[in-house]
Amino acid sequence: MRIKVINPNTLEVMTQGINETVKMVARPDTEFVTVNPSRGPISIEGMYDSYLAAPQVIEEVLREKEKYDAYIIACYGDPALEAVREITEVPVIGICEASLYIASLLAPNFSIITVIPRVIVPLQQLVAKYGLAQRLASIRVTNLSVEEFAKDLVAGQRALLDEGRKAVVEDRAESLLLGCAGMAGLDAMMEKELGVPVIDGVAAAVKLAEALVDLGKKTSKINTYKYPEKKEFKGMAKIFQP
Amino acid sequence: MRIKVINPNTLEVMTQGINETVKMVARPDTEFVTVNPSRGPISIEGMYDSYLAAPQVIEEVLREKEKYDAYIIACYGDPALEAVREITEVPVIGICEASLYIASLLAPNFSIITVIPRVIVPLQQLVAKYGLAQRLASIRVTNLSVEEFAKDLVAGQRALLDEGRKAVVEDRAESLLLGCAGMAGLDAMMEKELGVPVIDGVAAAVKLAEALVDLGKKTSKINTYKYPEKKEFKGMAKIFQP
Amino acid sequence: MRIKVINPNTLEVMTQGINETVKMVARPDTEFVTVNPSRGPISIEGMYDSYLAAPQVIEEVLREKEKYDAYIIACYGDPALEAVREITEVPVIGICEASLYIASLLAPNFSIITVIPRVIVPLQQLVAKYGLAQRLASIRVTNLSVEEFAKDLVAGQRALLDEGRKAVVEDRAESLLLGCAGMAGLDAMMEKELGVPVIDGVAAAVKLAEALVDLGKKTSKINTYKYPEKKEFKGMAKIFQP
Amino acid sequence: MRIKVINPNTLEVMTQGINETVKMVARPDTEFVTVNPSRGPISIEGMYDSYLAAPQVIEEVLREKEKYDAYIIACYGDPALEAVREITEVPVIGICEASLYIASLLAPNFSIITVIPRVIVPLQQLVAKYGLAQRLASIRVTNLSVEEFAKDLVAGQRALLDEGRKAVVEDRAESLLLGCAGMAGLDAMMEKELGVPVIDGVAAAVKLAEALVDLGKKTSKINTYKYPEKKEFKGMAKIFQP
Amino acid sequence: MRIKVINPNTLEVMTQGINETVKMVARPDTEFVTVNPSRGPISIEGMYDSYLAAPQVIEEVLREKEKYDAYIIACYGDPALEAVREITEVPVIGICEASLYIASLLAPNFSIITVIPRVIVPLQQLVAKYGLAQRLASIRVTNLSVEEFAKDLVAGQRALLDEGRKAVVEDRAESLLLGCAGMAGLDAMMEKELGVPVIDGVAAAVKLAEALVDLGKKTSKINTYKYPEKKEFKGMAKIFQP
Amino acid sequence: MRIKVINPNTLEVMTQGINETVKMVARPDTEFVTVNPSRGPISIEGMYDSYLAAPQVIEEVLREKEKYDAYIIACYGDPALEAVREITEVPVIGICEASLYIASLLAPNFSIITVIPRVIVPLQQLVAKYGLAQRLASIRVTNLSVEEFAKDLVAGQRALLDEGRKAVVEDRAESLLLGCAGMAGLDAMMEKELGVPVIDGVAAAVKLAEALVDLGKKTSKINTYKYPEKKEFKGMAKIFQP
Repeated sequence: MRIKVINPNTLEVMTQGINETVKMVARPDTEFVTVNPSRGPISIEGMYDSYLAAPQVIEEVLREKEKYDAYIIACYGDPALEAVREITEVPVIGICEASLYIASLLAPNFSIITVIPRVIVPLQQLVAKYGLAQRLASIRVTNLSVEEFAKDLVAGQRALLDEGRKAVVEDRAESLLLGCAGMAGLDAMMEKELGVPVIDGVAAAVKLAEALVDLGKKTSKINTYKYPEKKEFKGMAKIFQP
Repeated sequence: MRIKVINPNTLEVMTQGINETVKMVARPDTEFVTVNPSRGPISIEGMYDSYLAAPQVIEEVLREKEKYDAYIIACYGDPALEAVREITEVPVIGICEASLYIASLLAPNFSIITVIPRVIVPLQQLVAKYGLAQRLASIRVTNLSVEEFAKDLVAGQRALLDEGRKAVVEDRAESLLLGCAGMAGLDAMMEKELGVPVIDGVAAAVKLAEALVDLGKKTSKINTYKYPEKKEFKGMAKIFQP
Repeated sequence: MRIKVINPNTLEVMTQGINETVKMVARPDTEFVTVNPSRGPISIEGMYDSYLAAPQVIEEVLREKEKYDAYIIACYGDPALEAVREITEVPVIGICEASLYIASLLAPNFSIITVIPRVIVPLQQLVAKYGLAQRLASIRVTNLSVEEFAKDLVAGQRALLDEGRKAVVEDRAESLLLGCAGMAGLDAMMEKELGVPVIDGVAAAVKLAEALVDLGKKTSKINTYKYPEKKEFKGMAKIFQP
Repeated sequence: MRIKVINPNTLEVMTQGINETVKMVARPDTEFVTVNPSRGPISIEGMYDSYLAAPQVIEEVLREKEKYDAYIIACYGDPALEAVREITEVPVIGICEASLYIASLLAPNFSIITVIPRVIVPLQQLVAKYGLAQRLASIRVTNLSVEEFAKDLVAGQRALLDEGRKAVVEDRAESLLLGCAGMAGLDAMMEKELGVPVIDGVAAAVKLAEALVDLGKKTSKINTYKYPEKKEFKGMAKIFQP
Repeated sequence: MRIKVINPNTLEVMTQGINETVKMVARPDTEFVTVNPSRGPISIEGMYDSYLAAPQVIEEVLREKEKYDAYIIACYGDPALEAVREITEVPVIGICEASLYIASLLAPNFSIITVIPRVIVPLQQLVAKYGLAQRLASIRVTNLSVEEFAKDLVAGQRALLDEGRKAVVEDRAESLLLGCAGMAGLDAMMEKELGVPVIDGVAAAVKLAEALVDLGKKTSKINTYKYPEKKEFKGMAKIFQP
Repeated sequence: MRIKVINPNTLEVMTQGINETVKMVARPDTEFVTVNPSRGPISIEGMYDSYLAAPQVIEEVLREKEKYDAYIIACYGDPALEAVREITEVPVIGICEASLYIASLLAPNFSIITVIPRVIVPLQQLVAKYGLAQRLASIRVTNLSVEEFAKDLVAGQRALLDEGRKAVVEDRAESLLLGCAGMAGLDAMMEKELGVPVIDGVAAAVKLAEALVDLGKKTSKINTYKYPEKKEFKGMAKIFQP
């Protein structure tokens, strides 16, 4: 089985971090590549960043369509998720959605620890769209940007632990979700310190991708996720023409 | 007051139709332009189209940022709406959101008549995000694509009337929403035939834009809609750099 | 266009304050009158007051039915709103409903600052009825009655600012709503101090009324808001007989 | 124990019907009177009727405040319910709310059979306010007005049975609620024919009133239902002055 | 009328306490027995305890099926409630459900004061299932187990008062619910101290059982609560064979 | 990795069918046993059956606690799920919950095809508890009991296909869920005929169990799913004593 993991931003050190996590959790017989587009925002912290990263996510899927058995979008805002489900039959997993379902199997509720305050409302809306708002104990932020987190992992881990602890103690969260792909790999350390399940969306997505491929399941193409309608995309690269 | 109306797709005949409606409803002292990007999908019918049209919507706003007092995104999926709210302080109105509020002032519920089945689920999710799912009597489709509708307006109007009538009779809708900017201007004809308020999102958005500008209100920049974070957008045109 | 603005209580100084706001925001070509009934509670703070003010609101509309193009009910509990929609075809706007939609176009959430604790639950229920409970960050109170607020505007403004600031800082509200018509006109001062959009429901309602009249839209008369059934109203003034 | 049952409309034959039901279900030691105001609409079918009946309901309670241990508002729209809870400490029961709770103890869902289509939306909103929207299988109407129902009970019962049967068969309702006080007493006949519990709100309210009085429970006066604020009610009868 | 009150746990002192409350509130003509199974957990604090107590609750009903006019399940988790509704036609009341409806007739919201933190989530889910989550101000715990509460009533009452006071002051609860059958009988003391209605689910259930029997209402047997399907229950006592 | 799959009923032919499916989807290195209790209902169709099967499910887990890395409860009502999460640290998966998450990764909505009408309401409540009610297009039934289905697989498959087709065509379901463990293994046949993803909860649960074990994740023991409180279980086998 071959899985393509797409980091929607252009921060290569983060792509490497994601790749480390994928390597650690993927089964031996799972082949994978972790890529990021060459164009686009260096990090995704808000809807502007997200919308400007989305076409490159789509392009990463279109470019080598027949080659993969599943795709993972490794940004916690799940950018372009439904669009990618339209252009391929193989399963497409967003790390936010993946983390929500995995956590729900282990605990009755969860808090998300993410980067900066401006993404709180978009994440609330995303969780509500997936239907799990009633399980959301809180969304807390480290107040470190994606880049700051990447540059000073020690400070980042301290902030994650601080906010995770507050989520458990003050918000009664019974599990925690790492709300940024830049936090990939930090779940074990946090679990050890805090004593609750901590879900890394990247790891969760890899295992769900493997599960869906094992089951031979494909994305429903009957209506909402049908292939895009045949139409002209003026002035756009040929790869985008449906 | 100057309003920029952006048709996110590249179908110029539709831009003209939208412009006709704007002209008809704008106040004499309201200046406006109606534009469409030169690049991108000829119509928007699904999330793939929507995500690939979004950057050009953003670009249309960035290009002449200081010149306008409000922006209207004239596609019923409200593509890139929150992103545009991040990059300007002036009000930004999506025609779906506009139509929902205007209808809610006139009737206790509404049905949306839109184009093809694949957009039903995304519209349900959009209405739910705005909080008005409990007022949604139904979403019905003409089964004509945006282009088919534009090419054969007679067939289009007949289908609109047929579905609108079913929404009123079978689904007990007390108002109707035109679920595509390509239907702009058809509200009066439908009202006359069906006897319930019919809301054209384009017209609704123009009046709400005028209202907000009159009130001197600006988009909240305190958190979610703050200007994008300063960061590198690799390989992208200078206009997109925050 | 002629708009009748009805203050449902009998506090004339408040009617004058509302009128000042209407004058300030109405377009030059909008004619308006601001009235209050001669009978009824001097202020509306609870459902008892509200129900006893409602018939006089209805009477104010019935009395000069053909003369106006829109009605505004200028009390934040929107008393008798649906009833008035039954007795006229022209748009009827409640200032609570108006403020919710205007705020939702500018910010992802809002707090309401209102008068005394007993109106918190009725306002929660009203916001939920309009569908926007998920956008409600909090309801806060000045702990000043309508009359106290009217008598000591300095204390009133201080309390408004204090509670508004707490809503922004503690409840993460990204916009604020003035939860009493007696606060009309104080939005600009608060915006300047607090840096978030502050919506005055009276002003919002005026602009929405103008918008609906411009669009030529009428209240749906197909079912829920049909004219009242013909029937006897025993012992009541002729004006109330349907 | 003394209970005052208030029919908010002025249709005396309906008051007598309600009284028959009360007599049938009240315990031997329960004293009661069933009254209707001398002023107001002959029936309540919509919010206009409801708001114009409300002050007289309030007056019926104020007039003899110390004399009763509980009040019942015998109209399925529960008009003025919260207002009446403000002006007395003894329990106040609306027949809609009563029927919802009693039905919920006997069946997992219910349909309401009521009079004419215009009350469907207000009833949906009322059920949602009480929190039981998820248990509402459907609202169906006999298409007979309150007066028509009162005049031709045979036609009324036939329509009730027809719609009740459809609710059970087509909407999978497992219990039925009589959605108008004018239908009081018809539950037994319907149960026999349809084989599901049929709840008469008047009967339900009587038993809940007895239950609350037996328990010695009073309405919470700590905030929302506090006695009305002391204030002037201009030009209104002394009885209404708080 | 004969009512069987079943304490699902095996703590006899608690059964006696429940019986005291039943005796105090039941009408003189209501016969009742209060029992507990001889097998099963000494208290119910979590879903493990609940599932292991359920069969004995069922057995208590099956054992003397024709003898009673109503059953009460006197544990705040309402264990086996729907199952018991399947095996008898007479009304079956759970004390949690009962307390929610009684409180809702007296106050716009409520807090539940219960035993230990692990039951908070199951109670939230139970309240949501009954539809009243929007009225739930908070769930607070005494941090005393059922047995500790039974052994040291003084400490128990102090903790109840402390948490009840916090619910009223900090969570704005306008009524309180005793969230454990072991607290039966403490409502009056708390009401006196705290000034809000306090509902004892056992007492509430007794009065609702009397109400339903008076009305002659039976559980709906049309679908969900039909008698169990005829089938083999391998290796189980004959009493359990449908 | 060792997984114990528990069929909560006592129908051995169904246990064998479940085992076939587990064998087909489990990875080569996954060891598993599929068992059913020796006591209890031959099938589970309602809450009575469910509550009487629950203790034996618990017993199956307690009996060999240290031996397994995950447990699967293979009945679509997920009986005793939370209780089992209390008594072990390893992941516990219910096949209903599993199927909901897997389907949600492949399609925007789903219908459940299950056995007989009486389980519709309990399944609606279960889906709502997991938060995914908004994705539920419909619940349809074959009208065949579990035993009838097991005895006449040809009739069963025909009914499944018929109802599945109606769900897709009439209810616009974009994926289907097999709502009974007795239908295990029929997903591929249905997918081929109906062209939408069909999820077999047993297969879904196996893959999710493998995923969770791979990730090294354990059930949260911090509060709700803590080990049962130490207490006496009177008259019950030693195995049940916490």
